[in-house]
Amino acid sequence: MSRDHAVALDAADPLRAYRARFSIPDGVIYLDGNSLGPLPLAAKAAVQTCVEEEWGRGLIRSWNSAGWVDLPARCGERLSSLLGVAAQDVRVVDSTSINLYKLLTAALRLQSGRSTVLTETGNFPTDLYIAEAVTKAGAQQALRRVAFESVAEAIDETVAVVVLSHVHYRTGARHDMEAITRRAHDCGALVLWDLAHSAGAVPLDLAALGVDLAIGCGYKFLNGGPGAPSFLYVAPALQAALHNPIQGWFGHARPFDFDGQYEPATGMDRWQVGTPGVLALRSLEGALSVWEGVSATALATKSAGLFDLLAAWVDGPLANEGFELLTPTDPARRGSQLSLRHAQAWPICQALIHEGVIGDFRQPDILRFGLTPLYLRYVDVWDAGNRLTQIMQSGRWQAPRFHQPQRVT
Amino acid sequence: MSRDHAVALDAADPLRAYRARFSIPDGVIYLDGNSLGPLPLAAKAAVQTCVEEEWGRGLIRSWNSAGWVDLPARCGERLSSLLGVAAQDVRVVDSTSINLYKLLTAALRLQSGRSTVLTETGNFPTDLYIAEAVTKAGAQQALRRVAFESVAEAIDETVAVVVLSHVHYRTGARHDMEAITRRAHDCGALVLWDLAHSAGAVPLDLAALGVDLAIGCGYKFLNGGPGAPSFLYVAPALQAALHNPIQGWFGHARPFDFDGQYEPATGMDRWQVGTPGVLALRSLEGALSVWEGVSATALATKSAGLFDLLAAWVDGPLANEGFELLTPTDPARRGSQLSLRHAQAWPICQALIHEGVIGDFRQPDILRFGLTPLYLRYVDVWDAGNRLTQIMQSGRWQAPRFHQPQRVT
Repeated sequence: MSRDHAVALDAADPLRAYRARFSIPDGVIYLDGNSLGPLPLAAKAAVQTCVEEEWGRGLIRSWNSAGWVDLPARCGERLSSLLGVAAQDVRVVDSTSINLYKLLTAALRLQSGRSTVLTETGNFPTDLYIAEAVTKAGAQQALRRVAFESVAEAIDETVAVVVLSHVHYRTGARHDMEAITRRAHDCGALVLWDLAHSAGAVPLDLAALGVDLAIGCGYKFLNGGPGAPSFLYVAPALQAALHNPIQGWFGHARPFDFDGQYEPATGMDRWQVGTPGVLALRSLEGALSVWEGVSATALATKSAGLFDLLAAWVDGPLANEGFELLTPTDPARRGSQLSLRHAQAWPICQALIHEGVIGDFRQPDILRFGLTPLYLRYVDVWDAGNRLTQIMQSGRWQAPRFHQPQRVT
Repeated sequence: MSRDHAVALDAADPLRAYRARFSIPDGVIYLDGNSLGPLPLAAKAAVQTCVEEEWGRGLIRSWNSAGWVDLPARCGERLSSLLGVAAQDVRVVDSTSINLYKLLTAALRLQSGRSTVLTETGNFPTDLYIAEAVTKAGAQQALRRVAFESVAEAIDETVAVVVLSHVHYRTGARHDMEAITRRAHDCGALVLWDLAHSAGAVPLDLAALGVDLAIGCGYKFLNGGPGAPSFLYVAPALQAALHNPIQGWFGHARPFDFDGQYEPATGMDRWQVGTPGVLALRSLEGALSVWEGVSATALATKSAGLFDLLAAWVDGPLANEGFELLTPTDPARRGSQLSLRHAQAWPICQALIHEGVIGDFRQPDILRFGLTPLYLRYVDVWDAGNRLTQIMQSGRWQAPRFHQPQRVT
């Protein structure tokens, strides 16, 4: 496939106008939006307004006049269509790890008669650490880890909660949410999905699939900013039965009554804990406004197109360079990334970054490329494939400067 | 005391230059910095740099190149001198409520042989809610609430942890940290101090007093921005023995190894949970830079001076207007605020705000005035006293517009 063909794909791309809504540095091909999304201009404007007008001039009054107090719900509402749930069933608050802790602790208390929490061996580490901590603290359940492909068959009547990342952070492989959710419900288990690599990346329809619980990350495909707060979802039927173990004043039914006794808010507000982090929420709110009018079909089509374009380099010019494609080729079985295994993944990743192609490295030998349809062009992906080919064929990745260990995220 | 005298006090004030480091709107006398500190110019600059340069241009690379990964420690280091502790013993992460949950849960596990968590009946609600949740979950201890003045005598050998707000959010009364900490230690109990209304407000010397645990708020006297993250402190002798119940990947000894097994970081890093909230941390870091060179003595002297000036209005022109001074007059027994009880506190507070004097109201009948020495002038406090006197004597607070209930923070 020629570069001209990539240029033609861009010209016909229904999402082509969205790139202009982001601040992307010249000379950079950014394939790491699955780790930290780039700066949306609307997020920059929202933060500036928040700092200068709302905080600077409005001061304490902005809790009411700028609606700061409603930000967790407002951001949740904006997110709801990307998740396929009702507007009032999502809140944005705290970090993904903390939201997992809250929901899993609550779910295990509800399912106290069952002995197992089921997860996947290769789940994202913080999910494993939190699940381990929660099961140990409750002492009613033990954590069981099984291989990615064995999850469905491992669900039985002993399982209290299945905790899974929908899209695997290293390989990009996607679980069959419908089949696993159905199997869990058939066995009386609840399912908690971590959507860190799904929201904004793949079509989601949580309500229709009857998903019980979900959490996710604001700073990857949603572009909310570094360390942006996380979202959580609880199915309406479970909202009254589940209680936040970290009961703070913003989860109270009437926080500003300053009552000495805790009374949980109805609906989703009980999942708030402390005072909302306004700056980060305003940034995320701005970032989410970019998604207005984006169709899930256009996203999925372009994600598949970007993947196929990069995969063609791997299968073609890069075929004899020692790469193994880790991501499933079936679009229904993957997220919006392409992962390669290579024994020299670290120096290759460093050489790519040095030449303006920013992907990332995951221990011990994985190169990850985020394929984010909102702002990536086909020609960017073509250029990245071409650059990687040049780096491999020239041996430029072997330069000593690319072999120094560094801290990465 | 005449207005000219207040002007003279300002001219002689060693802190007079610090006001210029804040963005304070014209025509506003801001006596609510104990609820939300105003915008420091350095915080505004830090957020702008973070958004435009670090996020916008640096993208994912800024985790290393801009040192985002070190922000919880960097902010902790800046805070340490205000707390009277070593630089490495503080971290800034999550919210005050969540930090209380983490430290209290950990402390109760360490003290599992003891039956009581002791707190104060009028403690800030979120502290009570969290303490209630933690004791209920652990099932080893019960929460006991006693009156403010009865705390010291209620400490006995059954007490696992004493949880107190150092300065009371409504009255401004300050506990005797030294005496209570000593009494707790004599009985084998740990003490956890909530310093939300203390850090940046009163001199603190946690290490010298042997304080075990402390948490506090970034958005009040520290001016970190709305919903700024919280700090936590663990005495060095306890750091190895206490474990974060919410074990997330940023609390791991080597987060970027993506190890499937949790291994807590040494020192204070184990108290981190998820990815740091960078925007909010950069804002707080900017705000904390303002404190460089501020002497604790100058702060305490000016805080006392501002208090005496406002108290003179209450004792003098306002003596027959139905106010009761709730805050202790002894500077060693109070924080940096002045609280008044009045049956019509709500409409009076609204009338003051309408006339440019922003204090706040606390249920059911309390007017609070934050006295923040860094940016308040003596003449501001004189004008506030004068304005309040005019509002009372003219009856302007009786206007119907000031009697509508509103949501407040």
